[in-house]
Amino acid sequence: MPTLKEIVERSNTPIGRIFDLTIQLLIVLSLIAFSIETLPNLPQRWVRCLQIFEILTVAVFTTEYVVRLFVADHKLTFATSFFGVVDLLAILPFYLSFGIDLRSIRAFRLLRLFRMFKLARYNQAIQRFHRAFLIAREELLLFLFVTMILLYLAAIGIYHFEHDAQPDVFASVFHSLWWAVVTLTTVGYGDVYPITIGGRIFTFFILLIGLGVVSVPAGLVASALSTAREMETE
Amino acid sequence: MPTLKEIVERSNTPIGRIFDLTIQLLIVLSLIAFSIETLPNLPQRWVRCLQIFEILTVAVFTTEYVVRLFVADHKLTFATSFFGVVDLLAILPFYLSFGIDLRSIRAFRLLRLFRMFKLARYNQAIQRFHRAFLIAREELLLFLFVTMILLYLAAIGIYHFEHDAQPDVFASVFHSLWWAVVTLTTVGYGDVYPITIGGRIFTFFILLIGLGVVSVPAGLVASALSTAREMETE
Amino acid sequence: MPTLKEIVERSNTPIGRIFDLTIQLLIVLSLIAFSIETLPNLPQRWVRCLQIFEILTVAVFTTEYVVRLFVADHKLTFATSFFGVVDLLAILPFYLSFGIDLRSIRAFRLLRLFRMFKLARYNQAIQRFHRAFLIAREELLLFLFVTMILLYLAAIGIYHFEHDAQPDVFASVFHSLWWAVVTLTTVGYGDVYPITIGGRIFTFFILLIGLGVVSVPAGLVASALSTAREMETE
Amino acid sequence: MPTLKEIVERSNTPIGRIFDLTIQLLIVLSLIAFSIETLPNLPQRWVRCLQIFEILTVAVFTTEYVVRLFVADHKLTFATSFFGVVDLLAILPFYLSFGIDLRSIRAFRLLRLFRMFKLARYNQAIQRFHRAFLIAREELLLFLFVTMILLYLAAIGIYHFEHDAQPDVFASVFHSLWWAVVTLTTVGYGDVYPITIGGRIFTFFILLIGLGVVSVPAGLVASALSTAREMETE
Repeated sequence: MPTLKEIVERSNTPIGRIFDLTIQLLIVLSLIAFSIETLPNLPQRWVRCLQIFEILTVAVFTTEYVVRLFVADHKLTFATSFFGVVDLLAILPFYLSFGIDLRSIRAFRLLRLFRMFKLARYNQAIQRFHRAFLIAREELLLFLFVTMILLYLAAIGIYHFEHDAQPDVFASVFHSLWWAVVTLTTVGYGDVYPITIGGRIFTFFILLIGLGVVSVPAGLVASALSTAREMETE
Repeated sequence: MPTLKEIVERSNTPIGRIFDLTIQLLIVLSLIAFSIETLPNLPQRWVRCLQIFEILTVAVFTTEYVVRLFVADHKLTFATSFFGVVDLLAILPFYLSFGIDLRSIRAFRLLRLFRMFKLARYNQAIQRFHRAFLIAREELLLFLFVTMILLYLAAIGIYHFEHDAQPDVFASVFHSLWWAVVTLTTVGYGDVYPITIGGRIFTFFILLIGLGVVSVPAGLVASALSTAREMETE
Repeated sequence: MPTLKEIVERSNTPIGRIFDLTIQLLIVLSLIAFSIETLPNLPQRWVRCLQIFEILTVAVFTTEYVVRLFVADHKLTFATSFFGVVDLLAILPFYLSFGIDLRSIRAFRLLRLFRMFKLARYNQAIQRFHRAFLIAREELLLFLFVTMILLYLAAIGIYHFEHDAQPDVFASVFHSLWWAVVTLTTVGYGDVYPITIGGRIFTFFILLIGLGVVSVPAGLVASALSTAREMETE
Repeated sequence: MPTLKEIVERSNTPIGRIFDLTIQLLIVLSLIAFSIETLPNLPQRWVRCLQIFEILTVAVFTTEYVVRLFVADHKLTFATSFFGVVDLLAILPFYLSFGIDLRSIRAFRLLRLFRMFKLARYNQAIQRFHRAFLIAREELLLFLFVTMILLYLAAIGIYHFEHDAQPDVFASVFHSLWWAVVTLTTVGYGDVYPITIGGRIFTFFILLIGLGVVSVPAGLVASALSTAREMETE
């Protein structure tokens, strides 16, 4: 018979697994409930159901927090640990909401989502990602820096070419930055695009350079991951 | 002179190859016929041609199924095998359609397409893909999970920024999810896009993180494939 | 003093290099001229200039062809070789155009563009690409096959979801194929997109699978290129 | 106590670090100021603030340039070095602007941004990038060349298919080039897209080839980077 401590802190016992899965299921369900609440013209009956589910969720999460605090060897260490703070932030907004509007604070509950990473089976993969990130960190930072400069130069450039032709769309460098982001990430909504010959030729050249810059990080991460995998097998 | 069993089950004899290619050609043709049927304002003559072709196709596939069942060493093993079930599903809808509308059930015929993978020349490549998938499975699953969370966070975020400015387009978190999918995959149809400054800055940051996440799986698969190739040559 | 044969067939002499660069420059200029001719409302003076340039170009290319044929050790071998045929196709349309409309046949001149690959400095890179292609050929073919099936399934799926809501845009499976191409390549023009909830959820799932499939070939080519580079240094 | 030379030319002393960070902060701030100036309907008070900030910035940069010139061992070597010229170009426009409109010359200040690369911590990463670029240079040049040809062929092709259906959008090969750029980079603004069946089938095939070509450079750079990293650890 596993102790309460074993059930809550580990997932190698059947009851521990059930406890973990219940908490995780509740997290996902409360996120879905959070989304449903934003639906327009929600029938009054649904609103009441969601409120009851919210109270139920917070009750379970509060119980979980109290139990985790109770079974922890060092109370203060748990309370100030990452997961301890996350657990508290997941229930605190509810209790604070009796006085204030809870719309914005409720976003804290999202933090609880990180706990799903605890799943034992993903531990190795996460460690590998962490190692891969450390390997490629410098290049990723440099790419972030180069991307910023490229976006800025693209915005400055297109502003000079398109400002006179489309004074509303390319009203300032900041407006042009939106175009730079949408274009260099190849999203291309179609709300802003160059119409002058100069602007189009500039777009061509900036895309030629930009495509190389913007999609390299993905290659870096993938490459670092394979290096990290090789390091493990050595 | 090859036996009927050799013709049907192998493709190393000339007649066996012809048999395989005939079946494959018929699969492709029946898929094209299936597409043509959806064309609006199809002349009545075409409809009749397609119906006759459909009957012919099913007749050949039925014969094939019966022959495969006949030459199989273990009848039940074939009938319950993947390809046995697929073969049956390819002809069953036709016979069931005499009573019910066959529109939706006809999709079963698509399953028959998987049989093309049997082509001997692709066997090695498929095994390599399978091995590569096993190598990168954990990372792919983790990426799927991270993508889901990122899409959810993007939807929550853009909902808060754009809901007041565009209450129809970003009506709820679920409506915003559509924006998140279209943006993070860089498809960018242009039917939904942020117009507020906050929403645009949020889009920039979510794209900065998102581009790395969404395009990494392709790099993972490619990287795992090269590892799988090296494993073969060792 | 280099012989005529050395000047024409090699580029290791100064005159040979000048000859090569002149031909290449003329190829690029004739392509630009070809593009300018399509400009609407072209002044009559420009049209005449382009015609004179066209005659000049063909004169040079004809001379080049005759000289190459003359200096070739085996006349018939050159005339039937890839570059021999390309050289002929580059000038033939002009001579044939005295009777017939030359608009469509002129496209043959594009074939001449392949001769630029002859540039000595790119020889090593091209050989590497060729080797990389041989390494990744089977996977690339399989990916082409999987892409085709995925596009077809995407078209079938979206047709079922969107046909009733947008009978004009998703009129048939063939019309839906256009959507599938535009979406899975992440181009996303915005001329066709799903508006039903079912269609949007389907788009999400097909993109989740599709992104992995469509962008893997680039990774395969890059990965095979690095393998090819390693093979050279061994 | 560090000498003036040590403060300005190195960043290993506390005062030297503060000096470097101050200059870098001022660069970023002056770039932001440059962007704010382009905002339409800027209140007069802001314009005056920006002018004062501009004078302050130039004063600091001028002092920096004079000090750097003063402490340099070889005055002429510094003045004609890359950073010496960049430093001069960062302040020169201001002094020249008393007579002429400074709008376009101000872009020179952007050159100053390159000085941020001096940051010691990124030195290793930049060297790695430089090495990776040398490794993949030939393939990148070839890809640039292939991309140009592909864009040209795409423009010629779509012009033939769409010119008659959309004479305004696909008015010439040059207009079609814009479509080719927007499509092959998968930006897809939605301002130009094929509407004929022929044009759409052509788009499908050009995308099938194009996707492989356009996204390979990113893979090449990432692959060369991992090779460069391995070379360092050997």
